[in-house]
Amino acid sequence: MPIKAVVFDAYGTLYDIQSVAAVTEEAFPGYGEIITQIWRIKQLEYTWLRSLMHRYEDFSAITKDSLAYTLRVLGLTYDAADFERIMEKYLDLDLYPDAPAALLALKGKKLAILSNGSSDMLDRLVRHSGLDRTLEAVISVDARGIFKPAPEAYMLIEARLGVVPAEVLFVSSNPWDACGAKAFGLNVAWIERVTPEAMALACIKSDVVPPLTMFKALRTQMDELGVAPDHRIHALSELPHLITRP
Amino acid sequence: MPIKAVVFDAYGTLYDIQSVAAVTEEAFPGYGEIITQIWRIKQLEYTWLRSLMHRYEDFSAITKDSLAYTLRVLGLTYDAADFERIMEKYLDLDLYPDAPAALLALKGKKLAILSNGSSDMLDRLVRHSGLDRTLEAVISVDARGIFKPAPEAYMLIEARLGVVPAEVLFVSSNPWDACGAKAFGLNVAWIERVTPEAMALACIKSDVVPPLTMFKALRTQMDELGVAPDHRIHALSELPHLITRP
Repeated sequence: MPIKAVVFDAYGTLYDIQSVAAVTEEAFPGYGEIITQIWRIKQLEYTWLRSLMHRYEDFSAITKDSLAYTLRVLGLTYDAADFERIMEKYLDLDLYPDAPAALLALKGKKLAILSNGSSDMLDRLVRHSGLDRTLEAVISVDARGIFKPAPEAYMLIEARLGVVPAEVLFVSSNPWDACGAKAFGLNVAWIERVTPEAMALACIKSDVVPPLTMFKALRTQMDELGVAPDHRIHALSELPHLITRP
Repeated sequence: MPIKAVVFDAYGTLYDIQSVAAVTEEAFPGYGEIITQIWRIKQLEYTWLRSLMHRYEDFSAITKDSLAYTLRVLGLTYDAADFERIMEKYLDLDLYPDAPAALLALKGKKLAILSNGSSDMLDRLVRHSGLDRTLEAVISVDARGIFKPAPEAYMLIEARLGVVPAEVLFVSSNPWDACGAKAFGLNVAWIERVTPEAMALACIKSDVVPPLTMFKALRTQMDELGVAPDHRIHALSELPHLITRP
């Protein structure tokens, strides 16, 4: 069945969540990168835990809670202004450099985002980065009150775009998201952003692997969840070649 | 309402999952501890992800998958015998030294385990460590096909022991488990096993925190999930004092 829609994950796929590190580094010199790494781990954990606990809060609240956790665990003191400045940057993340051209090259397909982000976060992110002119829909899981990889989240694509799962190519850099989308029945391209850290990890002894290398590497490796994405790519520019022409 | 039953989490609460590190170190010199840390992170993630994906597999399968992930990510080659030797040790973990005396001191209450572990793993663990003589029930979430912190998992306590949530004291070292049990309505004691790593983390700069310290510390800090346990203890021996005498 031909692909009619290409749907993207937002955080880590189109938008570089590491781009907040400059702001965290400015607020807490020496801690910039480690804050972003712990923050991300806990942000994801809290989406899964709250979904399972039936205690959904939107991604904005979870992002604040996980930042508060991170600063506490690292023993950092801060005031409301520091906290707000970091959160502000999260609403204005950088696009990955390959994103705009890749979206343009897919013109003719329905293009959308399906993200854990709350609608207000996503609307601002998309407007700031100019993607509002390219995307047909920005879909937040908030409409269902449960986070990816729950099937209820992926169901929103058909509900909003009117395309069945077999007509959708879903694109995510997050291994768990790629697996969840595949388990649900979408066609899936996993974008493996090969980082120097991921390469290094496999080559060097554990007692000399710096902690940041470790954290980053853990987010870049495909998971063992009993499903595999259909495609494994290394840049968004590979996407047009994956799609059968109508 | 008086406490009629004390129910324990198994892995990390009564049983020391770090005790497998000697075997992993023997199999992969230099990697012993880092294997156990990554393994644990992924083991937990996979329980949450598979629960959300409605792709439940029992804890035994998840424990194997997460070990396979860990060895792959670390670039370690192994044969079936190495793998089996490590898995064997996971079925025979050490009891924390304070566990047997604490259970004895609670005689007169219904004592049980509620664990993510599959029944065969738990039965063997409990028999090997001699706790089968003290526990009234060993309850596996496998009966419901979903992992903690889903409410369906904690419901098994009332179903098996015939005590309502308000009569139960649930004990866990895992912050997410303590929060899940509290959100469900149990009385909860969170046992904070204060490790040197957790203490160190708050005092030193991120660029000198070794990776293992980081991983361990992340599992010992209370989470920001909108609920708080009723009690925070540092050893199982504190439990009798928490329970209102009938």
